Amino acid sequence: MRAAVLHGPRDLRVEQRESPRILKTTDAIIRVAAACVCGSDLWPYRGIQAIEAPMPMGHEYCGVIEEVGSDVLALRPGQFVVGSFFASDNVCPVCTFGYPSSCQSREFVGGAQAPLLRVPLAQGTLVPLGGMPDPGMIPSLLTTSDVLGTGWFAAMAAQVKPGSTVVVVGDGAVGLLGVLSARQLGADRIVAMSRHAARQRLAREFGATDIVVERGDEGVDRIMELTRGVGADSVLECVGTQESMLQAIHCARRGGHVGYVGVPHNVQLDGEALFFEHVHLHGGPAPVRRYLPHLIDLVCNGKIDPSKVFDLTLPLEQAAEGYRAMDERRAVKVLLQP
Amino acid sequence: MRAAVLHGPRDLRVEQRESPRILKTTDAIIRVAAACVCGSDLWPYRGIQAIEAPMPMGHEYCGVIEEVGSDVLALRPGQFVVGSFFASDNVCPVCTFGYPSSCQSREFVGGAQAPLLRVPLAQGTLVPLGGMPDPGMIPSLLTTSDVLGTGWFAAMAAQVKPGSTVVVVGDGAVGLLGVLSARQLGADRIVAMSRHAARQRLAREFGATDIVVERGDEGVDRIMELTRGVGADSVLECVGTQESMLQAIHCARRGGHVGYVGVPHNVQLDGEALFFEHVHLHGGPAPVRRYLPHLIDLVCNGKIDPSKVFDLTLPLEQAAEGYRAMDERRAVKVLLQP
Repeated sequence: MRAAVLHGPRDLRVEQRESPRILKTTDAIIRVAAACVCGSDLWPYRGIQAIEAPMPMGHEYCGVIEEVGSDVLALRPGQFVVGSFFASDNVCPVCTFGYPSSCQSREFVGGAQAPLLRVPLAQGTLVPLGGMPDPGMIPSLLTTSDVLGTGWFAAMAAQVKPGSTVVVVGDGAVGLLGVLSARQLGADRIVAMSRHAARQRLAREFGATDIVVERGDEGVDRIMELTRGVGADSVLECVGTQESMLQAIHCARRGGHVGYVGVPHNVQLDGEALFFEHVHLHGGPAPVRRYLPHLIDLVCNGKIDPSKVFDLTLPLEQAAEGYRAMDERRAVKVLLQP
Repeated sequence: MRAAVLHGPRDLRVEQRESPRILKTTDAIIRVAAACVCGSDLWPYRGIQAIEAPMPMGHEYCGVIEEVGSDVLALRPGQFVVGSFFASDNVCPVCTFGYPSSCQSREFVGGAQAPLLRVPLAQGTLVPLGGMPDPGMIPSLLTTSDVLGTGWFAAMAAQVKPGSTVVVVGDGAVGLLGVLSARQLGADRIVAMSRHAARQRLAREFGATDIVVERGDEGVDRIMELTRGVGADSVLECVGTQESMLQAIHCARRGGHVGYVGVPHNVQLDGEALFFEHVHLHGGPAPVRRYLPHLIDLVCNGKIDPSKVFDLTLPLEQAAEGYRAMDERRAVKVLLQP
C-alpha cells in the first residue's frame, strides 16, 4: 500500500509500505475512510521532536473493519468504527476512572495516513456506529477521533458549565473545536484569542462571542477588561508553549479552571507563582475514548458540524503538500483521502 | 504591650511595642485569647525568607473584640471572634467565588503574637461565636484560624469524598489536620507519610489508617504497592518543597487530585511531565474565611478536637523557646498565652 512516512525534518514522503496485518489476537485491521494531519504531527515535521527512524504518520482515523483477531468478540468485519490515537483496553482501573489515554495497557496508534491501519486492543479502542454513515458525515466523524475529542477534553478539564465565561488560547483546529465544545456545554461568553481573520470567522461560527487579537500580557489585560478585572471561569489552553500556558493561567479568575491539552514543549511552571494564582489545573493527552460515544451521537444527530475545521482536502498521495500548508498556516486542518 | 518580633534569622524577641489602634473605619481591635507559631513563621525565622525590618509575628488568632471602627456595624465589643490570616471584605467577586484569601482588598493580618491585634476589614474577616466559649475550647477554635483551615482546604482542593483513598504528604500540624479533615470528609483510607513516632501516633488519632515512612521515589513506590499500582484519589501536599510536590503528584492516580497548601519554595514543575501525569492540581493560600463557620461549628459541637496538634504551651514571654522547639521539630505546634 501507499502510505505517508516522515524521513526527517520537512521530508514527508508517500511511499510503498507493507500492508499491516494482525499481530496480536486483540488487533483489528481497518480500511481507513479518511485520515488527516494533526497539529502534533508538525512537531516531528518541524524537527522539534526528533525521530530516530522513518516514521509512518497519522493517528486520527475512522473506517470499516476488514479483519479482527481471535479475541475480538464484540466487533466484526464490515462495521464502521472510530477510535482514539491511544489504544486502550477500557477495563483497567485507569480506564474505569475515565483516563483511557493513560490506560495501563495503552499503545499509540500510528500510521493512519494510509489505506489500511492496525488498531491494537481493538475491542476497547474502537466504537462502532449503528450502521454505515452517510459519506458526507465522514469528515465530522473523523474529528471525533482526536481533534474534537481533544477540544472537548479541554472544555471538560476547564469545567465549562452552563453560563460560564470561557477563554480559548490557541486558534488551531483544537482551539476552534474547543470553542464549539464550550458552546455545546452551555458557556455564556466565549472569547477566542486569535489574530487570523479566517480563524476568527470560524471561531464565531463555532460560537465565539468575542475575539481578542492581543497575546501574552496584553492579551491578559484585554481579558481582564472584558471580565471587569475578575478573569474567566474556564480557560482552554490549546497550544503548549511557555507563553500560551502562562497566558491561560493569567486569564483565569481565582478559583477558575485551566484545561490544557497542547502538549507542553519546554514549559516550566513556577510553584510559588502558581500557588498565588489560585487556579485549578488539569490536562494531558485527551481521554478521547471516554467521549467518543457522546461525540459520535452529537455528529450523527446533526447537533454539531466540526468538519468545518477541514479547509483543505487532498488525496493521500499529496500528503506532503498538506503538511506544508499546515506548517505555513495556510490551512487550519488538512483531510487526506486514502 | 509585650509582643513577639523577629529581628533576623533565629533572633525572635518579646519586647515592648505600641498597642495597636483603629486606623481605618473598617478595623477592629481584638484582645487575643490565644496565639500560636505557624510552620510558615519558620521560613523567615530560618532566614529562608528575608525580612527588611523587625517584623511583628503571628497571624493565627481568636479573641474578644475590644473596639470597632465606625463602619463595622455587624460586630460589637465583647463578642468572641475568629478570623483568618488574610483580611477579606467578603463581598468582592473573588470572595463571592469562594477565594477570600485572594480578596481584591485583602490585607495580611500580622502581629497576632501579642495581647492586642488590629484586624482590617473586620466585618468581612471576623466570624463571631454565639456566646463566650468554654476556655478549654479556645485552642481548638484557634486552629480554625489557619492551621485547621489550611488542612481543610488541602482536603477540599484534593476533592476528598466519602470512600476516597487519600495520601497526606507532610506531618507538620497542617498535614496532621489534613488527616483529620480527610476523615471528616469521609475518606475510607488515609495514608500519612511520616517518619516521626509521635506524629505517626497523632496521625492515627486523627484518622490515618496507614503510615508510610519512606520519602521521595521510595515513598511513591510504597503508595503504589498500597493502591495496587493505581495511586491515590486525593493527595494533600502540606510541605512546599520540590521533593514533596513531586512526591504528591506521583502518588496521585491518573485523574486524581492534588491539593497543595505548603507555600512552594523553589518549586519548578515541568509542563510535559505534569501533562502525562494526568492529575488535577489546585492549591494556594487557604481561603479560610469560607470554611470558618463550618469549622467553628464542628469544634463547638465536639465533632473534632484539632487542639491535639498543640504539644507545647508557653506564656507569650517565652515565644523564643517556642520557635526553637518548632525549628528543631521538638514540638509539632506551640500555643502562646498572651
